[in-house]
Amino acid sequence: MAPVKAMGAVPAAFAAPGPLVIGGRPAAEWAAEGDTPLFVYDLGMVAARAAALRAALPGVDIHYAIKANPLPAMVAAVAPWFDGLDVASDGELAIALGAKPAAAISFAGPGKRVEELEAAIRAGATINLESVGEADRALAAGGRLGITPRLAVRVNPDFELRGSGMKMGGRASPFGIDVDEAPGVVRRLRAAGADWRGWHIFAGSQSLDSAAIIETQAATIALAARLSDQVGAAPPLVNLGGGFGIPYFAGDRAIDLPAIGDALASALAARPAILAPSRFAIELGRYIVGECGVYLTRVIERKVSRGETFLVVDGGLHHQLAASGNFGTVVKRNYPVAVATAAAEAPTETVSVVGCLCTPLDRLADRVTLPVAAPGDLIAVFMAGAYGLSASPSGFLGHRLPAELLAYATRS
Amino acid sequence: MAPVKAMGAVPAAFAAPGPLVIGGRPAAEWAAEGDTPLFVYDLGMVAARAAALRAALPGVDIHYAIKANPLPAMVAAVAPWFDGLDVASDGELAIALGAKPAAAISFAGPGKRVEELEAAIRAGATINLESVGEADRALAAGGRLGITPRLAVRVNPDFELRGSGMKMGGRASPFGIDVDEAPGVVRRLRAAGADWRGWHIFAGSQSLDSAAIIETQAATIALAARLSDQVGAAPPLVNLGGGFGIPYFAGDRAIDLPAIGDALASALAARPAILAPSRFAIELGRYIVGECGVYLTRVIERKVSRGETFLVVDGGLHHQLAASGNFGTVVKRNYPVAVATAAAEAPTETVSVVGCLCTPLDRLADRVTLPVAAPGDLIAVFMAGAYGLSASPSGFLGHRLPAELLAYATRS
Repeated sequence: MAPVKAMGAVPAAFAAPGPLVIGGRPAAEWAAEGDTPLFVYDLGMVAARAAALRAALPGVDIHYAIKANPLPAMVAAVAPWFDGLDVASDGELAIALGAKPAAAISFAGPGKRVEELEAAIRAGATINLESVGEADRALAAGGRLGITPRLAVRVNPDFELRGSGMKMGGRASPFGIDVDEAPGVVRRLRAAGADWRGWHIFAGSQSLDSAAIIETQAATIALAARLSDQVGAAPPLVNLGGGFGIPYFAGDRAIDLPAIGDALASALAARPAILAPSRFAIELGRYIVGECGVYLTRVIERKVSRGETFLVVDGGLHHQLAASGNFGTVVKRNYPVAVATAAAEAPTETVSVVGCLCTPLDRLADRVTLPVAAPGDLIAVFMAGAYGLSASPSGFLGHRLPAELLAYATRS
Repeated sequence: MAPVKAMGAVPAAFAAPGPLVIGGRPAAEWAAEGDTPLFVYDLGMVAARAAALRAALPGVDIHYAIKANPLPAMVAAVAPWFDGLDVASDGELAIALGAKPAAAISFAGPGKRVEELEAAIRAGATINLESVGEADRALAAGGRLGITPRLAVRVNPDFELRGSGMKMGGRASPFGIDVDEAPGVVRRLRAAGADWRGWHIFAGSQSLDSAAIIETQAATIALAARLSDQVGAAPPLVNLGGGFGIPYFAGDRAIDLPAIGDALASALAARPAILAPSRFAIELGRYIVGECGVYLTRVIERKVSRGETFLVVDGGLHHQLAASGNFGTVVKRNYPVAVATAAAEAPTETVSVVGCLCTPLDRLADRVTLPVAAPGDLIAVFMAGAYGLSASPSGFLGHRLPAELLAYATRS
């Protein structure tokens, strides 16, 4: 018998025994509404997360990076709870403009096309400049359009966020302008008459190490102050980046948001004089929406091969690439999954949950212990709110697109 | 300075010095036609590959597995050169039916929904049954529809293809029916009046080890004979699977197709009596179309960060996930890339080619040696004909879809 493998913890909001309830409705009802496979996003959980961020980070702007989940209805629903939206393409810009005034939108990304720069300037969104060359192109575009561009400078910091799933600082990088070049770029922007919006400093993402996040935020404030001193002007806004991770895997622990908030408040209270008039923002995507999403897929069959049991489902990696361990991870580990239609006291067994695609890569859970499931039962893959459908090869093997449904019920 | 990393060899058809020519036209002309980024598929190369397969494998059916590249225009263009099309979903079935009679189409995949089984039976395509349960569902569907279903049995072989990028045999598997159960399923199909089409035995894919392919084909013929003896009937068709790899990375060597063909001819000449009347098929996807495709993306800028040079391009992993090392590979290695607009004698430098996505995962080539490129130059990523756009998260970060263009010019 193959050994059992661990899986991540089911988010507390979904962890009650018995059939899974999402936003006040049983998973089976959601599946009946949208056919399977489908995604359900519980907006009550996003609201709760927004409230927790507000409580922990008073006076700090909270931005939602819509790349985590760009579903237009989702963006429109959650936008009022946040101070800004961050986008990464002209497509995302168009979605964000449907949900928030342009002055609250910023656009980052290393390879913006000239048409994208023009679209942002025309709309009045802030462009986070990723390079000296992009600064030139943005100034030229503003000149052509006769519009003063709103420009922030993304800095490639000289440190990185420890424990980060994706390191984005402390090294040569396509992202941001190296520290020693950044002040000169700002001086040039100001001399050219651009509206300099401040700094964007992003040192990493998906860290579960609260101490590392605290340390990085302090370093980011110090760096922003040093760069601003070199410029000789206060930045209107310092975007401190994000990096708040969520617990996907066995052994992962949630970050200590109150501790991070307390430390940030202290650091801001003691900030250097040049930053006295500045606002500060935290930019989050995964942390805001990751846990609110559930991917529901139906068991087509139980298959026993050479003594191992497979639950073959009608979904797969074409909708949930990261859960299959094929996106941004080297070691395949199990996301939390559950039998959404199981009774509370169901007996358990060891199974692998495999998708419907004709490739061995399509495995949503590898040798996990689950309640016994039969064809027709629903499997829930949790942590599906961020980098799910939009970050998966949805056209792969020609299957239809899943529905994405919003649960509006407010949580008690 | 970061060390230079190797990259795979540029396919011979594209390896001439100087500006890249695809299907008789310079890459720059293709890019002007389709904007960037875009894919160009050279159908002349597919024709040449088909001819080479015909020459090496006389009397053996050659099937194209359209999952490798399901672009409808591509499927329609190449279908006449092959004996069958293999599909993996109802979506792919619809594409194949536009290009080939149903009798030449087979449908494999572990999680076929009942609607998919019905669609295949209604059309008259062959279903490769992946499990005992699916056999039951297909028979029931045929009964409901009043149509005799065309059913083959996919076998989970008790051996695997050595050197295979994806092993699909020799272990517990979602794919196929275990060897000891397969004859009983066929007896049941025949007793129920189904049209038994034969065996489908797929032991692995993307192997560059010709000796292993030869050995596996011999073992597959022996297994088909053993199972057929147990059934007591000759299978109309034995699908021997595929597994022919193509050389993506430095050090990879192409398979020895003539040697494989010779060995297969000998094995078939000496095949057990029960298989005397059977036809045999090889099912290939990547080997047929992988090398014909080029992904062209334009340099937006040269960026130097901490002494390293990045070419930031307008394409990325949203179109070429596998080239970024994020799909089905553990170790990131470089696909062959080139500066498509470079002069033959251009000086070279060490660069990384990074995509336009705002994620560190988006790196199309890591510290390779290329001719010096400037903004506006085109970068070609080769080996982009199979598992390119359709196997990539094309909606990720909201960028527009690339064009996919067909070069019809026949190669001399």
